[in-house]
Amino acid sequence: MDQKVRDIGEDALISRLIQGQKDRHDVIAGPGDDCAVIDLGPASGEWQLLKTDCVIESVHFLTGTEPEKIGWKAMCRVISDIAAMGGMPEHALVTIAVGEDCKVSEVEGWYRGMRKAAEKFGDVGIVGGETASLPGSGAVISIAMTGTVEPAKCAMRSGARVGDVIAVTGGLGNSFASGRHLEFTPRLHEARWLMDRDSAMKPTAMMDLSDGLAKDLPRLAEMSAISGYEIDLSAIPVNPDSDLAAAVGEGEDYELLFTIPAAGAENLRLAWEEQFPNCPLSYIGQMTDSGDRTALSGGWEHFGR
Amino acid sequence: MDQKVRDIGEDALISRLIQGQKDRHDVIAGPGDDCAVIDLGPASGEWQLLKTDCVIESVHFLTGTEPEKIGWKAMCRVISDIAAMGGMPEHALVTIAVGEDCKVSEVEGWYRGMRKAAEKFGDVGIVGGETASLPGSGAVISIAMTGTVEPAKCAMRSGARVGDVIAVTGGLGNSFASGRHLEFTPRLHEARWLMDRDSAMKPTAMMDLSDGLAKDLPRLAEMSAISGYEIDLSAIPVNPDSDLAAAVGEGEDYELLFTIPAAGAENLRLAWEEQFPNCPLSYIGQMTDSGDRTALSGGWEHFGR
Repeated sequence: MDQKVRDIGEDALISRLIQGQKDRHDVIAGPGDDCAVIDLGPASGEWQLLKTDCVIESVHFLTGTEPEKIGWKAMCRVISDIAAMGGMPEHALVTIAVGEDCKVSEVEGWYRGMRKAAEKFGDVGIVGGETASLPGSGAVISIAMTGTVEPAKCAMRSGARVGDVIAVTGGLGNSFASGRHLEFTPRLHEARWLMDRDSAMKPTAMMDLSDGLAKDLPRLAEMSAISGYEIDLSAIPVNPDSDLAAAVGEGEDYELLFTIPAAGAENLRLAWEEQFPNCPLSYIGQMTDSGDRTALSGGWEHFGR
Repeated sequence: MDQKVRDIGEDALISRLIQGQKDRHDVIAGPGDDCAVIDLGPASGEWQLLKTDCVIESVHFLTGTEPEKIGWKAMCRVISDIAAMGGMPEHALVTIAVGEDCKVSEVEGWYRGMRKAAEKFGDVGIVGGETASLPGSGAVISIAMTGTVEPAKCAMRSGARVGDVIAVTGGLGNSFASGRHLEFTPRLHEARWLMDRDSAMKPTAMMDLSDGLAKDLPRLAEMSAISGYEIDLSAIPVNPDSDLAAAVGEGEDYELLFTIPAAGAENLRLAWEEQFPNCPLSYIGQMTDSGDRTALSGGWEHFGR
């Protein structure tokens, strides 16, 4: 009786909220993936991606953070989700809820950062939004975004198969304390390139790492109905200023997590290294039918338990 | 130096934020109208509408309000904006930011209300969203929505002409205190019917009344580059439990405000009364080139001055 959201946590809350929901005929993927996927009809030949994401003061950024970096992060988080589906971002709506004592220069700084990221990745248009007063001193920046993806290049969380190799881009860990979470590069070009490969070395499932491997990999396995995985902890790309626990459990890295057929892994690695010499690609394990998903622990939980 | 948002108010803040923004080639209407309008390309033949809107505890609803009504209002506010463009709503993304002490049953109640409204008006699909923790005790429910509209039936704020009659649906005033703001009906069917009329009696400009006539009519005039209007105060449809000041200045009515060519006004009224016998249609004045927009005063301002 009278459970509170922290008693059940974010994932359980969401699954209770969407329980029994009927999807419209044009919904290819509803809640549960990085984006919702909508069929725009045969005339278009494309699918539309829809995503919303917010950053909150004292949760996703600390009071006193440089405003441009806050805006950059807010915009790049959503672009990262569109990228993780293999899509291109198109239009954004920005909601800003702040106390009436918030400085105008602060909000203008957020916008500069958002616009910089929007122009850099896909020339996203900020086409609307709203500003609203939020009682109290915190701030909320929420961004909703549309994108498009060709059906053959759309990556979902649900396509992984037993035997697939588990891959991670870049390095993981200590993103928040180091400030990297404020200046990260969404893996838009990398994801597009990956989904452009031959089927032998194309990702079968993909998502971005926002809550940490320990939280996100089980989500991918769950959506793919795969019961287990083996992880080689020594293969996890731990950032030089981080330790393994942070790399696995902290989140905020916004790297790509994906699975590919084992037979294509070596060829993909060779092609990747030629294409992206400055971004490591790490194979950290394999999907299995062992029933065991306990290899990792930690991960970001919104309603702390 | 160091201006705060309450020093300049919402409209000035927004115009500073969007200053110098370049629109993408596919943007028919960007910030400033009820929705953004995107050209989906010649193959589709339709325009897409994008809108985001939020309700905030202690601002848009009081603590202790029945959760289902809060969800209903949150969803209907956005549907009302899609309606005001002459469009049909399609998909929604829901962001919920709450303290970790928020009851699960409260959030479930919001969702029931949202789903009820979504099913009733256009069978909107809730295709995604997020839940996040908000430090402090308030709650924010933000909804982003897509819709579609045939180009010939799209109503913008910018089409009013000098001489056009100013029309309002329903009754105005005392919506917050009476609780009507929690159970209103977005004028989706009425707006679609209006935009389906012959050009002689079709709205030239339209918007929904969320901040009150005194605030919203000047916005419509501004977007239409019309310098003035005459208002017959005795023609304003004041709700029985309201007074004129509240009807003009309080907002939260979510009725349609639109302009039509004077020559078609009488025919439109006759057709309207037959079609919507239970919803009054009031002609309250006329657009002019007088340079005078002072006929009304009041209106809701987010960052109270």
